[in-house]
Amino acid sequence: MNAQTPTTAAVATGGIPGSRKVYEAGKVWPDIRVPFREVAVHPSANEPPVTLYDPSGPYTDPAASIDISRGLPRTREPWVVSRGDVEIVESPREVRPEDNGGASGALLAPAFDAPRRIYRARGGAAVTQLDYARRGIITPEMEFVAIRENLRRQASDPALRDGEDFGASIPDLVTPAFVRDEVARGRAIIPANINHTELEPMAIGRNFLVKINANIGNSAVLSTVADEVDKMVWAIRWGADTVMDLSTGRNIHNIRDWIVRNSPVPIGTVPIYQALEKVGGVAEDLNWEVFRDTLIEQAEQGVDYFTIHAGVRLAYIPLTAKRVTGIVSRGGSILAKWCLAHHRENFLYEHFEDICEIMRAYDVSFSLGDGLRPGSLADANDAAQFAELETLGELTRVAWKHGVQTMIEGPGHVPMHKIKANMDKQLAACGEAPFYTLGPLTTDVAPGYDHITSAIGAAMIGWFGTAMLCYVTPKEHLGLPDRKDVKDGVIAYKIAAHAADLAKGHPSARAWDDALSRARFEFRWEDQFNLGLDPETARAYHDETLPKEAFKTAHFCSMCGPKFCSMKISQEIRDAAAAQNDVAEGMAEMARRFRDSGGEVYVSSAAKPKV
Amino acid sequence: MNAQTPTTAAVATGGIPGSRKVYEAGKVWPDIRVPFREVAVHPSANEPPVTLYDPSGPYTDPAASIDISRGLPRTREPWVVSRGDVEIVESPREVRPEDNGGASGALLAPAFDAPRRIYRARGGAAVTQLDYARRGIITPEMEFVAIRENLRRQASDPALRDGEDFGASIPDLVTPAFVRDEVARGRAIIPANINHTELEPMAIGRNFLVKINANIGNSAVLSTVADEVDKMVWAIRWGADTVMDLSTGRNIHNIRDWIVRNSPVPIGTVPIYQALEKVGGVAEDLNWEVFRDTLIEQAEQGVDYFTIHAGVRLAYIPLTAKRVTGIVSRGGSILAKWCLAHHRENFLYEHFEDICEIMRAYDVSFSLGDGLRPGSLADANDAAQFAELETLGELTRVAWKHGVQTMIEGPGHVPMHKIKANMDKQLAACGEAPFYTLGPLTTDVAPGYDHITSAIGAAMIGWFGTAMLCYVTPKEHLGLPDRKDVKDGVIAYKIAAHAADLAKGHPSARAWDDALSRARFEFRWEDQFNLGLDPETARAYHDETLPKEAFKTAHFCSMCGPKFCSMKISQEIRDAAAAQNDVAEGMAEMARRFRDSGGEVYVSSAAKPKV
Repeated sequence: MNAQTPTTAAVATGGIPGSRKVYEAGKVWPDIRVPFREVAVHPSANEPPVTLYDPSGPYTDPAASIDISRGLPRTREPWVVSRGDVEIVESPREVRPEDNGGASGALLAPAFDAPRRIYRARGGAAVTQLDYARRGIITPEMEFVAIRENLRRQASDPALRDGEDFGASIPDLVTPAFVRDEVARGRAIIPANINHTELEPMAIGRNFLVKINANIGNSAVLSTVADEVDKMVWAIRWGADTVMDLSTGRNIHNIRDWIVRNSPVPIGTVPIYQALEKVGGVAEDLNWEVFRDTLIEQAEQGVDYFTIHAGVRLAYIPLTAKRVTGIVSRGGSILAKWCLAHHRENFLYEHFEDICEIMRAYDVSFSLGDGLRPGSLADANDAAQFAELETLGELTRVAWKHGVQTMIEGPGHVPMHKIKANMDKQLAACGEAPFYTLGPLTTDVAPGYDHITSAIGAAMIGWFGTAMLCYVTPKEHLGLPDRKDVKDGVIAYKIAAHAADLAKGHPSARAWDDALSRARFEFRWEDQFNLGLDPETARAYHDETLPKEAFKTAHFCSMCGPKFCSMKISQEIRDAAAAQNDVAEGMAEMARRFRDSGGEVYVSSAAKPKV
Repeated sequence: MNAQTPTTAAVATGGIPGSRKVYEAGKVWPDIRVPFREVAVHPSANEPPVTLYDPSGPYTDPAASIDISRGLPRTREPWVVSRGDVEIVESPREVRPEDNGGASGALLAPAFDAPRRIYRARGGAAVTQLDYARRGIITPEMEFVAIRENLRRQASDPALRDGEDFGASIPDLVTPAFVRDEVARGRAIIPANINHTELEPMAIGRNFLVKINANIGNSAVLSTVADEVDKMVWAIRWGADTVMDLSTGRNIHNIRDWIVRNSPVPIGTVPIYQALEKVGGVAEDLNWEVFRDTLIEQAEQGVDYFTIHAGVRLAYIPLTAKRVTGIVSRGGSILAKWCLAHHRENFLYEHFEDICEIMRAYDVSFSLGDGLRPGSLADANDAAQFAELETLGELTRVAWKHGVQTMIEGPGHVPMHKIKANMDKQLAACGEAPFYTLGPLTTDVAPGYDHITSAIGAAMIGWFGTAMLCYVTPKEHLGLPDRKDVKDGVIAYKIAAHAADLAKGHPSARAWDDALSRARFEFRWEDQFNLGLDPETARAYHDETLPKEAFKTAHFCSMCGPKFCSMKISQEIRDAAAAQNDVAEGMAEMARRFRDSGGEVYVSSAAKPKV
């Protein structure tokens, strides 16, 4: 290794403040260990700990030994091998200089050199979770997902399920069989390349918790191996459920190796980016052979899902000519240029079944790209966008025929009143395959704040049924996200995803909010910090005004000060009422007296005391 | 003046980068000068400048001379006086030590000592915009608002009006008569105390642009005069349409004087806070006399709207006993405590007509407080909240009877699926009086990020019909907002308000987004920055990656680099098509050829080329 080799010190490790890493074993598959983040509250609360979904992997487990030059443990390898349908690739594709954009010498990022076996399906078998599910098999991946989605709850409280789910079928408790059935009908995917054995499986589907994706990646302008691995670890620390490596330029093969080997979450890529590098950046020179080679290269590395822009058909390109912002998808514009240059149909569309054959041999999932997504409100929901969506529906059915797991990418820039139509059309056109949207951004006027413009749209479309939300950082449209931007984007999207789960009435969503609200009401400051999405920031903000430790137990905060604290007064009201021995009785009696006092006192039917 | 006296240097002045302050005169009232922010774009765009709504006052006018110890020019004074229905208060209420919480010596904030006349209605007249409107009068305030809302557009482009407005009645162009009619029927208010002659009038109503409010205020713990004036100027610089001074503790009279005299936007307060100070912080000792005294004190100072928690009725308090977070409104909890302590009806409810008599004599508007708003998702839309809302409807009708302008405060913490019910019930219960909501926050789990949890809910409820959105800063629940928090809160809420205007199909909304999107597509970086909500941040983010001036004209950015730029490729696609002499014809021809080539080529009906 040379001086560029990242070290363990390059990534953030250790637990989230106030949290404990816990694991639950499987029943069907006793050797699986499903991770959770457990937040214990102060003993005075007399409440059980809160269990949170935890995609952060071993990095937040103080007991784990992390060495990113060796990669994470390959826990899934026995699961894959024991199914008996894969073989070791005896002569895997060799890394060629063009895989790294011709980088050499000091400019070449170090190879990830810990040895590993590379697998593919034996004899043309479909080794996909979809195919297993159709055959009625419950895989370890499926049980892992089932346990994970339940957040250790044993039952569902109907009182917390008052959402509007727009026709979703969210169960009270997720069983392994439910996961299998959702995957079998294509309504959920478990992105899990057989060569990504470091993976902790997760599901993307409308009847599961809403997930978020974080994009990382170097570019022609910036970035190093260590930075990208660090960004991946940083993104999952704060809650990213999958990570897309959108690297371009030099060293993308080697950087990707480092990322996949160290990632407990699914990794997605856009293979056309690398294929374009291999043909010197000239879109017209792209061809099926170089694209096929790139798919195999990345499938052998263990990439879990590929964005494939097969829906950018030649006939649709004219529909973009009068747009305000034309084609804003990089992949979409590359393929549009190819189509026009050759006056030929998109070769990804024409080779779609060949692509399926490759992907099912490794269980790479499709993320069918929306190359014609709108890049401005003016272009939202236009003919180009919806024509492509219909084609994505057609391609979904082809992918399913080959047993390939599939999700669908969606926009983009969409004003609020046009968001729901996107979800409705996607459900209809794509047979309920999971929807995976970028934002959408609900206004174009806030460069520097597009994590907010898009969190609004993301929360709404997540509520309507989108299964995964692709984050947008504050740097969108302006520059490459740094560490702070990645965190800001992830937190904004965790908010959107959780707000969507709450509105859908997901049975595991509201308990978290209620626990935090009780902590807030009872001035359990430490619990309020620890239960928050970002304990460090919550604590820091509190301490800016009231830094002393004594204030961590103060029954007031700096906003109102001690005399004006409404929560303190509320508590006094409760205490006063309790002094009458029975809160409910006393309160009800008081209310009765007032109701009985005649017409002056107004109590609507909705306002009748429940007690 | 002593050493604490703020100086001009204490506030931000000067134009927003890339913007020019412009004014438009009235036609009915030629002496009014309505301010706008004009953003000129690069000559290559061949486009007119974009006109933006501008609440920032003279502070952003380089031609204005600012001296906060003298206050802003009293432009409105002749408008008020010339109506002939006011008199000078010969012996105004004298400032007493308890008005400033007993502060003295070095702890006493300096008085604002530039002399001014204090007015009130003569002979019990209603000097309110509502009463003038009912009498068919178009006041200068109404014409000011009409010009302001149109953003200098002469006509409305129907293509940009494709929103869903849920039954609002937004006109293509706002006329002074329309403003008058909206005010007359109570569907809009123009908060404009006759003693706030420094005001640039604005309207709050469902058929106008959605407005935002920023809260400032010292507390028992922190803050000085200079800090609060600075925060007010800072908040309006970034777009706050009104400012509430929520000061408590010492010096609140003097601080409020400084704020009102320097504020071009309406100032709101919660008088019960000061009244409580006057009785030593003991809620039980509150009484009508001290409250009445406080109303007159603040009305004479020029406060434009009062939050009055008259809907917290004794009978409703028991409904809060089983809540997760009880009563979270400060005002609400103070009054609840008073009610319970005395076992008597809320004295604000009982004296409501007396309050109306005072407010109509100065044209102070009601902001009927939601003292029982939910402080957690668990408590959203419960019996206590909606019982109070019904009472606020009853009180609205009483206020209207007295000619007092009225808006209604709303929650709070509400999951997405319960937001619309709030708007629908408010419209029904309160006769379309403007709704003014805090957020709502759509999840409780993100302390430190509640500007985002609430921007989601604010955008949605704004779309549904809320007229003004009260901002939430990142410090909510944790501490007092500083300058950065105020800006972050304001920007998040400008996003929410504008997203709402877009979704409603407001005729002046989308032109702004389109202008910025065209700048983005054409790599007019300077235009993109300048048209953004926050030009400084947009530029800084861009420059982090590509700092050199040369990159300001680069046809790519750091995200994709030059080779992968989708916008560049889109432009090449256009250029290639244009080379065939006629884009539309050539494109259509190509599409036709593909459609004619048979079944392999799919074009949905929605996808037929428009050309």
